Amino acid sequence: MAADRDRILDTIERYVDLVGKGTADEILALYADGATVEDPVGSEVRTTRESIREFYAAIEPLEQESRLVSARVAEGQAAFLFELVTRVGDQTYTLAPIDVMTFDDDGRITTMRAFWSNADMEIS
Amino acid sequence: MAADRDRILDTIERYVDLVGKGTADEILALYADGATVEDPVGSEVRTTRESIREFYAAIEPLEQESRLVSARVAEGQAAFLFELVTRVGDQTYTLAPIDVMTFDDDGRITTMRAFWSNADMEIS
Repeated sequence: MAADRDRILDTIERYVDLVGKGTADEILALYADGATVEDPVGSEVRTTRESIREFYAAIEPLEQESRLVSARVAEGQAAFLFELVTRVGDQTYTLAPIDVMTFDDDGRITTMRAFWSNADMEIS
Repeated sequence: MAADRDRILDTIERYVDLVGKGTADEILALYADGATVEDPVGSEVRTTRESIREFYAAIEPLEQESRLVSARVAEGQAAFLFELVTRVGDQTYTLAPIDVMTFDDDGRITTMRAFWSNADMEIS
C-alpha cells in the first residue's frame, strides 16, 4: 500500500528543511535503500548511497535557507516547488526547483528527480 | 536533439492558456502522436488521441481561468505549477496542479502527468 498523503507531506517538509540546514546523513536517512537521485533532470542518475551522500555533502557546508512553496501528492508520488537561498560572501543565489519523488510504503524516498537549470538561478 | 528551453516554455504557456479557455482540439494539437496523459497521477493512462481528446472535451464547456505560476525546464522535460479557477454557479473551485511533461524535438508534448488530488481543491 502506498504511503498516505500526510506521511509523504511530512517527508517532503523534512527534506526541504534539511536541504537548507541539515547534514548529508540526516537527508540520506529520508531515502529508502536502493533509491536513485537525478538532480538536475538530465544529469547522471545517482544509484548508490555513497553517491547520494556525496551529492548532499557538497551543499552541507553552505549557508542556506529553504522553504516549501507548494506540494502536490498523488498515489504515493509527489511533486513540489521549493526555494533554496544560498549566501556566498555578498552574493545571494536563489533557486526554486520542482522536485518529483516516489515513496515506499513507509514514506521514504525511492526516487528523486529535480527539475531546474542554470537559467533558473537568480543572483543578487 | 531535445527541444530547447524557449520552445518548451512556449508550449507550456500555450497549454495552460488553452486549458483555461481553449478547445479540446486546440489542446490536442500540442500533443505529439503516440502521446500519453495521466491526470491525475495514479489514474488510468490515456494512450490514444481519442481518449486524450475526450479528457479535454469534458472541461471545454466550463467557465475557467488559468495562469502559469512557475515552470522549470531540464533537458527536454519540464515540471510546472499552474492555477485553474472554475466557476460553477456561485461556487469557485481553485486547483493548482503540478504537471510533468516530456517533449519531442519540435516541442510537442509526448507525456503528461498531473500531480494533484481532491485534497488540493479549494472551494469558495
